[in-house]
Amino acid sequence: MARGLTVAEKIFSRRCHREKKAGDVVMAPIDAAMIHDITGPLAITQFWEMGGERVFDPEKIILLFDHQIPADSIPAAKNHVMMRAFAEEQGIVNYDLREGVCHQVALEKGRVAPGDIVVGSDSHTCMYGAVGAFATGIGSTDMGFALKFGALYFRVPESIRVGAEGRFASRVGPKDLILRLTGDIGADGATYCALEFGGSAFEEMDMPGRMTCCNMAIEMGGKAGIVPPDEVTRAYLKERRSFDPVELSPDSDAVYLDQRSYDVSDLSPQVAVPHNVDNVVSVEEVAGRKVDQVFIGSCTNGRFEDMQEAAEVLGNETFSDKVRVIIIPASRDEYLKTLRAGLIERFVEAGALVEAPCCGPCMGGAFGLLAPGEVSLSTSNRNFRGRQGSTEAEVYLSSPATAAASALYGEITDPRGV
Amino acid sequence: MARGLTVAEKIFSRRCHREKKAGDVVMAPIDAAMIHDITGPLAITQFWEMGGERVFDPEKIILLFDHQIPADSIPAAKNHVMMRAFAEEQGIVNYDLREGVCHQVALEKGRVAPGDIVVGSDSHTCMYGAVGAFATGIGSTDMGFALKFGALYFRVPESIRVGAEGRFASRVGPKDLILRLTGDIGADGATYCALEFGGSAFEEMDMPGRMTCCNMAIEMGGKAGIVPPDEVTRAYLKERRSFDPVELSPDSDAVYLDQRSYDVSDLSPQVAVPHNVDNVVSVEEVAGRKVDQVFIGSCTNGRFEDMQEAAEVLGNETFSDKVRVIIIPASRDEYLKTLRAGLIERFVEAGALVEAPCCGPCMGGAFGLLAPGEVSLSTSNRNFRGRQGSTEAEVYLSSPATAAASALYGEITDPRGV
Repeated sequence: MARGLTVAEKIFSRRCHREKKAGDVVMAPIDAAMIHDITGPLAITQFWEMGGERVFDPEKIILLFDHQIPADSIPAAKNHVMMRAFAEEQGIVNYDLREGVCHQVALEKGRVAPGDIVVGSDSHTCMYGAVGAFATGIGSTDMGFALKFGALYFRVPESIRVGAEGRFASRVGPKDLILRLTGDIGADGATYCALEFGGSAFEEMDMPGRMTCCNMAIEMGGKAGIVPPDEVTRAYLKERRSFDPVELSPDSDAVYLDQRSYDVSDLSPQVAVPHNVDNVVSVEEVAGRKVDQVFIGSCTNGRFEDMQEAAEVLGNETFSDKVRVIIIPASRDEYLKTLRAGLIERFVEAGALVEAPCCGPCMGGAFGLLAPGEVSLSTSNRNFRGRQGSTEAEVYLSSPATAAASALYGEITDPRGV
Repeated sequence: MARGLTVAEKIFSRRCHREKKAGDVVMAPIDAAMIHDITGPLAITQFWEMGGERVFDPEKIILLFDHQIPADSIPAAKNHVMMRAFAEEQGIVNYDLREGVCHQVALEKGRVAPGDIVVGSDSHTCMYGAVGAFATGIGSTDMGFALKFGALYFRVPESIRVGAEGRFASRVGPKDLILRLTGDIGADGATYCALEFGGSAFEEMDMPGRMTCCNMAIEMGGKAGIVPPDEVTRAYLKERRSFDPVELSPDSDAVYLDQRSYDVSDLSPQVAVPHNVDNVVSVEEVAGRKVDQVFIGSCTNGRFEDMQEAAEVLGNETFSDKVRVIIIPASRDEYLKTLRAGLIERFVEAGALVEAPCCGPCMGGAFGLLAPGEVSLSTSNRNFRGRQGSTEAEVYLSSPATAAASALYGEITDPRGV
């Protein structure tokens, strides 16, 4: 029976050259495949075990170092050596450790276009849906296959439509919306679905905000998060790459597994409380909770606009000397924008540690680890028990504005009152 | 038999209120005691085991976090919690992790004055001799005692006089002199001696250069390195603290164990080659050696002037993409000076990772570790086997100018030819 298509269905139909609908299993071509320093060595090993000699297309492989850079252990240093050798042998353009967090760099270097099918051996690969791609995280075995053959089996996912209207109030933004949505849908509420974002709030949202929202699709179990490409997308990509003017708006009679709608104008700052991303409350409910560390950065919220949001809340004040404030722009480009706007100077004057672009405390392995009993507030995407160090520590998640306000006072603070 | 006194003898005589000479064993008062995040917990534990309740004077304790910050492991995070609690309980002014490398911060915050006797539970505490103090690194048991009693037994050391005349050629400087001296004296050639620096080259040397030289006294086994305080010292301290106008020039008939003299005008850039600091050669002898990582920073060479030296060699070029270039100003003050002079922007544009003030790769525990077979060139003070990661890696030591030149070309490079 004829029916309209979702954005995800349109992308698979386009790339498979015939109409594909949710539930269809397809062998789809891969437009880009991303590996990083944690998962890359596993994927490369799989590639070799499958008899891999040459990658399917070195131009389509993205290889970056961000989780453990500079190397934080001898095994990590060995992984890096192995990946550099692989990149050189295969002719892969290798950004190595200079550029920053894989997802940010993949987008800002124009490695992903609207309508692409992209895989990455990192769960937050879904962020690339911000430019209208179908992008998803895969395991090392799948990645080994993708590196060799440039194609992969997918079951075309059902979609959940998330419509958002209205305008965000001051110091409320996309991170608050995606946290609220995660709280509402739940950690497994969108398992293997594409989250399709739309409505005026998304149309008016800048690219960094769209990245934040798509980034967290996986926190609901989503296979992908997608904002249909529009003028905002095209403006972002224009200076980065050429691309087909592909039309990917969902059909009006597309079929969704679920539809949700929000009016963002009455959204308050949201906080995910320990120990799950979908334990989401309004900031008022946890205001006053003492924090030992605040991290502003990550693929979720490490862009210049996030830094501006934090700096605006900081003003000319100094961060509480009870708090370790760690600020990490997500890429070299974002770092330089932040620096040139005077914000790195401001953050350091105020007492922050500003580190070179990398994943930082988000993944809880390299630095910024918490002792038992300590509390962190973080703009990153996960607060699982032990995520940032001790299993007896607590991690809260928020927007950059809420993080900056909390760093000022040493306790979780509503940024609207600062 | 009456004879004149060395600077070290004058300092002990002054603080013990009667003439003291090399070989005398004295219980001397401690003017400042420094502990950091690696050794501090051991010293505090000793303090407790000695029945310590209150430190002798919280104003005279310097407590800093620099080796593992932000915490790079859960045990490190626990150490930090323990030290913060100790600082709070004892009323110690606690710079925590905001300020940077202990030795740099101790000096720039005016915690050390000419004629002081200072101990630190870190071997490079000898750096404070740059302001005309007798400063030395001690173990945790001694530090436990010092924290409790504010005094410690010392054997007043013999001195070795190091005179340097002349002017450094372009792109040759204090680091090259101290490396050359270390090569000449050897790793145990000054064991338990005070290295007393003098002559026109030291008189004309700025405070950062003096710090670099005093810092490395321990690499010859020296108990201390001292530059007699002069106008340069007073100008440095003037904006940092009040201090006695103590006269500490050595007597003309002072007795030295050894005297050495240098004409720095014919000194070339020096490099310490693996795996000992006293394996020192002229840069020409190792030029062309491929390097995987370059580190510019540390208590030895992490000051603004070191950053200027590196930036001057870098010019408007880009670092080799075969090299990981890690640049870390030694303190927040030095970072801000470097940033405001536009050098952090320049370094990041050129491809460096600029990290927040800390010890960085120098101590080889937190980050910047090397894989087997890799080669590092570092402006820090030690190149022992395994110092920066794998025992099968190599560490070379040089000035910031040589390090920057080598980072440009991906191989050890004479900065005079760049």
